[in-house]
Amino acid sequence: MDSVRKLIRDIPDFPKKGIIFKDITPVLGDPTTMAAITGAFEKEIEGFKPQRIVGIEARGFIFGAVLAHQMKLPFSPIRKPGKLPYQTVKIGYKLEYGEGTLEMHTDGVLKGERVVVIDDLLATGGTAKAACDLVEKLGGKVAGIAFVVELGFLGGRKLLEGRKVIALTKY
Amino acid sequence: MDSVRKLIRDIPDFPKKGIIFKDITPVLGDPTTMAAITGAFEKEIEGFKPQRIVGIEARGFIFGAVLAHQMKLPFSPIRKPGKLPYQTVKIGYKLEYGEGTLEMHTDGVLKGERVVVIDDLLATGGTAKAACDLVEKLGGKVAGIAFVVELGFLGGRKLLEGRKVIALTKY
Repeated sequence: MDSVRKLIRDIPDFPKKGIIFKDITPVLGDPTTMAAITGAFEKEIEGFKPQRIVGIEARGFIFGAVLAHQMKLPFSPIRKPGKLPYQTVKIGYKLEYGEGTLEMHTDGVLKGERVVVIDDLLATGGTAKAACDLVEKLGGKVAGIAFVVELGFLGGRKLLEGRKVIALTKY
Repeated sequence: MDSVRKLIRDIPDFPKKGIIFKDITPVLGDPTTMAAITGAFEKEIEGFKPQRIVGIEARGFIFGAVLAHQMKLPFSPIRKPGKLPYQTVKIGYKLEYGEGTLEMHTDGVLKGERVVVIDDLLATGGTAKAACDLVEKLGGKVAGIAFVVELGFLGGRKLLEGRKVIALTKY
């Protein structure tokens, strides 16, 4: 999507030296592009027959919740540890440097439910894979995973092999 | 809103002993109630003639982004420190125990813009006040502040005196 690409800005050395961060904040400030993204997501995932949208903290909340609202689907958050107040399941995963943990409420997905996982950006795929594993741990089915941006050179799709992966913009 | 109240669940001793946490997660899982909340927000704030919606991390992202999408308005995030990649302004504020900091991109609000700040819950009001101060520091006008839930017994409105405060559900 050219409209998305035009708005994304490169931030050198964030969050650490040598990394060029793709800042999607200007996209949020452009309602026409947000509507185009949401429409594109809807079109791409409707064939997956989703029953629920799951968004990964924090930017995945924004794109996921808007999509869920537009499609009139339930929305569930996947969060960093210690943020969700009710009973949770956790999953640990490897990051490029160190380790991460993701958490979801035990009633965040129903057994057998078809779920689409949304995040803003696919990088190494570690977070997205952990999110899919969490959904499956709760008995849900990952019908697909959709991102606004994919950093193809980081090879995140390998970690998501066998899954239906959608990205609206690729670098 | 009765539909909201019915879905909110009380979590005792979260995040610390003695606090009863109002868990709004089930609201996110109910698209009819999400649509009712968004419609109620829209109706309440349209008189403020907002030009931008600002959401406070992280649950404010969900309600704020959905509202911005529905009203075709730009959305800007207010985040915890170190999360926003571009140039930021910061503000420190007192929490019940300790201190907090909020951050916003310098281009997150335009000079003179009429802004509505959205968060899920009004408790002591410290975070909401800091968010309003941030918007004003950037030259924006806080046209109003809107919450899904207000814990009236914590007196958060006092800290927001002189501002237009909306809450859809009160305890």
